[in-house]
Amino acid sequence: MTITVAELAKKVGAELQGAGEGRIRGLGTLVSAQADELTFLANPKYRPYLATSQAGAVLCTAEMAADCPVPALVVPNPYLAFAQLSQLFALTPIATQGVHPRAVVAESAQLEAGVSIAAGAVVEERAIIGENTVVMANSVVGEGVVLGKNVRIYPNVTLYHGVSIGDNTIVHAGSVIGADGFGFAFGEGHWHSVAQVGSVCIGANVNIGANVTIDRGAIEDTVVADGVILDDQVHLGHNVEVGEHSALAGKAGISGSSRIGRYCMIGGAVGLAGHLELADQVNILGMTLVSKSITKPGTYGSALPADNERNWRRNAARFRKLDELYRRVVQLEKKVIEN
Amino acid sequence: MTITVAELAKKVGAELQGAGEGRIRGLGTLVSAQADELTFLANPKYRPYLATSQAGAVLCTAEMAADCPVPALVVPNPYLAFAQLSQLFALTPIATQGVHPRAVVAESAQLEAGVSIAAGAVVEERAIIGENTVVMANSVVGEGVVLGKNVRIYPNVTLYHGVSIGDNTIVHAGSVIGADGFGFAFGEGHWHSVAQVGSVCIGANVNIGANVTIDRGAIEDTVVADGVILDDQVHLGHNVEVGEHSALAGKAGISGSSRIGRYCMIGGAVGLAGHLELADQVNILGMTLVSKSITKPGTYGSALPADNERNWRRNAARFRKLDELYRRVVQLEKKVIEN
Amino acid sequence: MTITVAELAKKVGAELQGAGEGRIRGLGTLVSAQADELTFLANPKYRPYLATSQAGAVLCTAEMAADCPVPALVVPNPYLAFAQLSQLFALTPIATQGVHPRAVVAESAQLEAGVSIAAGAVVEERAIIGENTVVMANSVVGEGVVLGKNVRIYPNVTLYHGVSIGDNTIVHAGSVIGADGFGFAFGEGHWHSVAQVGSVCIGANVNIGANVTIDRGAIEDTVVADGVILDDQVHLGHNVEVGEHSALAGKAGISGSSRIGRYCMIGGAVGLAGHLELADQVNILGMTLVSKSITKPGTYGSALPADNERNWRRNAARFRKLDELYRRVVQLEKKVIEN
Repeated sequence: MTITVAELAKKVGAELQGAGEGRIRGLGTLVSAQADELTFLANPKYRPYLATSQAGAVLCTAEMAADCPVPALVVPNPYLAFAQLSQLFALTPIATQGVHPRAVVAESAQLEAGVSIAAGAVVEERAIIGENTVVMANSVVGEGVVLGKNVRIYPNVTLYHGVSIGDNTIVHAGSVIGADGFGFAFGEGHWHSVAQVGSVCIGANVNIGANVTIDRGAIEDTVVADGVILDDQVHLGHNVEVGEHSALAGKAGISGSSRIGRYCMIGGAVGLAGHLELADQVNILGMTLVSKSITKPGTYGSALPADNERNWRRNAARFRKLDELYRRVVQLEKKVIEN
Repeated sequence: MTITVAELAKKVGAELQGAGEGRIRGLGTLVSAQADELTFLANPKYRPYLATSQAGAVLCTAEMAADCPVPALVVPNPYLAFAQLSQLFALTPIATQGVHPRAVVAESAQLEAGVSIAAGAVVEERAIIGENTVVMANSVVGEGVVLGKNVRIYPNVTLYHGVSIGDNTIVHAGSVIGADGFGFAFGEGHWHSVAQVGSVCIGANVNIGANVTIDRGAIEDTVVADGVILDDQVHLGHNVEVGEHSALAGKAGISGSSRIGRYCMIGGAVGLAGHLELADQVNILGMTLVSKSITKPGTYGSALPADNERNWRRNAARFRKLDELYRRVVQLEKKVIEN
Repeated sequence: MTITVAELAKKVGAELQGAGEGRIRGLGTLVSAQADELTFLANPKYRPYLATSQAGAVLCTAEMAADCPVPALVVPNPYLAFAQLSQLFALTPIATQGVHPRAVVAESAQLEAGVSIAAGAVVEERAIIGENTVVMANSVVGEGVVLGKNVRIYPNVTLYHGVSIGDNTIVHAGSVIGADGFGFAFGEGHWHSVAQVGSVCIGANVNIGANVTIDRGAIEDTVVADGVILDDQVHLGHNVEVGEHSALAGKAGISGSSRIGRYCMIGGAVGLAGHLELADQVNILGMTLVSKSITKPGTYGSALPADNERNWRRNAARFRKLDELYRRVVQLEKKVIEN
């Protein structure tokens, strides 16, 4: 794949500043990009590196373009334009169409045109695989699963019976969708499992990272709406609902029946207790514990940041008596006022 | 599967209030259940929805039954009875008995009657698979593994050599049981691994969620006792012991050699340091760090709950000087008393 | 495998105290070891058990050896010597050389001498598998992957296209290396993925636990240096770099572009924000949030330890007004000084 700088400009509606005939063959960072590579400048922190960039072209704002020593593609949102153009240079191998002789596809499964089922993949009874969808090596598509068009299931994924996934959605390797929710009733001295008869419904244009777990619903479905992006090792408990275009960073864990609104940003390793609601546009900072519903958009946090061990130990010890400290201050206030 | 309301009542010893001849075909929520569906009312929070329920039958307590507009199945513990009856309506596909032609089973493996080994599953030398046990697609049963009766191994599970699993235990997809414990000695400028010659011993009636990891013991075994339930992405380090009927929620992580008692409840994303002991009936709230043994039953916590960013930043900044604040209060107390 | 006590002493340069002709067949703990088992004493906490040990030999320091009732192997670092000798008794099954008839290996893949490719494993186009490397059942080695010599890939692992792994490295089951980094630009009301054209470069003598995820780089590579050890369920985001001989405990999560120095110790469930740098020899205690770079070697923490629910609730409530409490103390100080 090679393309001229001028053609790149056209594709994202950029104003070209400088020569447009250079040919671009790949992507680079502002520091590393060579004369045949495209790069971008979005974070002002990296601006000092612009003046010495040897890139074939730099996506940047008009204000930054003034200092650009090489062809600049001027756009209002350089990172967005970079995302769009980056796809031209993607290196993900193209899947071979058809069913590999070492795949196992049930007779009752329905495969649309252009489907690719790789070696070792197993597609079970009555599954429906949409046009141009790819199921990679050793993934398992359970009974009655419905996959839309252009879905990509990376290797070693497990989709349990009845799960549905919308068009253009990507599921990275090792993820498990539709395992039983953690529903148990205690009685007679032991746990009794509650049959999980709901399923999981994943929308279109969703991105699911590696080793994610999304449990099936107890009665109704667990739902991930269109455009949601989930990073690696995210966990969604049964009957969780994630609203359109929300983003959950690595290792976030959402307990059963909690509902996340639209356009939320959930940081890494955040934990939500069960049965909560988060309004639209709620941002949760990394490692925060959310134990109550949040009804207002905004940013929320709770984790304490690292300190050196000595300070941390001292302060943590004082924390154990924070309520007592509070009471001592109240007493002091009384005394001082009396005085 | 259809069954009358009266027959359901009989199965759980419920007192039937109202007509018993209606036929039930599935499960629903109090709000969604139709005339052919069973539901339950356990959480008083949902009581307002009872009066308008259109369910075929509602499992509830005697006290709640007074307001029930449809047939009520009166029991002391409605959620427990629902768990028991829910299994009648479970939708988990029934596995085909026998060894799929695309499975790979070592000649020295021993398969009891009624076993199901699915496509792509690999059963290695000298493994023993008990009666009616199911090994689903692409799972790997290592050398010398022993599985009891009615065990269900979902797809893409890995059981390392020598692991043993008791009757009726379920292992959800992607879980890894018996990988080497994280045992390394530092010396000569690098890490030296310690051979992990113990194994993992899982009891009967255990539930293991998806993408769980349970490491094999260093010398002796890692042990999960009968009736334990583990949610998705739980991690048990080497030589951990979990006592009977304890429950670990999603993403809980237990460091090496720690021992959890019986009937404990470990919340989501809880972390236990290594070499600790938790007494029986200890409950740990979500995201808590447990760094010392706990000898008394009860409930314990440590994580701070979310606040808005502004408050959180201010309070977190003050926390860094909490010890100093304490000292200032002590000084004040001295001065005020002197006065 | 059996070996005499004297031979064991020789292998680690230990001074033998007592008889050397006993034959050792396995490993035991100080308490459990029998006359044909080797054990060690490193932690002074276990010293009381030395006097009654029935082991065939005990690795210990000279100072401890005085109390040893059985043959002692005197070394300066007993745990290190135990690690070295433990490998003689390792029980990990030896892989059968060659390509299993049920493996799928692309014609363009290159397999060096002594390679073992197990049933259900899939090796894609142009992959290169070094001498004596083992790919276990149902693992997937993507296009153009390069594995060094004596690498061991446990079952159900996924290596994406282009990943490279150095000699003697071990990857435990269920791990995913090379999935796309979590790179998305927001615009026009939705997320646009940024093609991840970097790869993952894993050094030699690395240990990767089970269900680990290491994402491929956005432009340049994600890098794990020689001798690093990663426990189960660790997550490394795109473009993370981990320096030589650092150790990351279970469930640690490192956000994109963060760089960890050499000889660091990262505790369980620690979270690093993105774009940080950690100096060499930085130790982070379990469950700590690291949100700023750390430039000095030393030990750091942030998580609060468990307390009983009542105290925890009270103190956590006071924490929400810690800044206010601080201001009240400042007011008091002013008043008291005025007085």
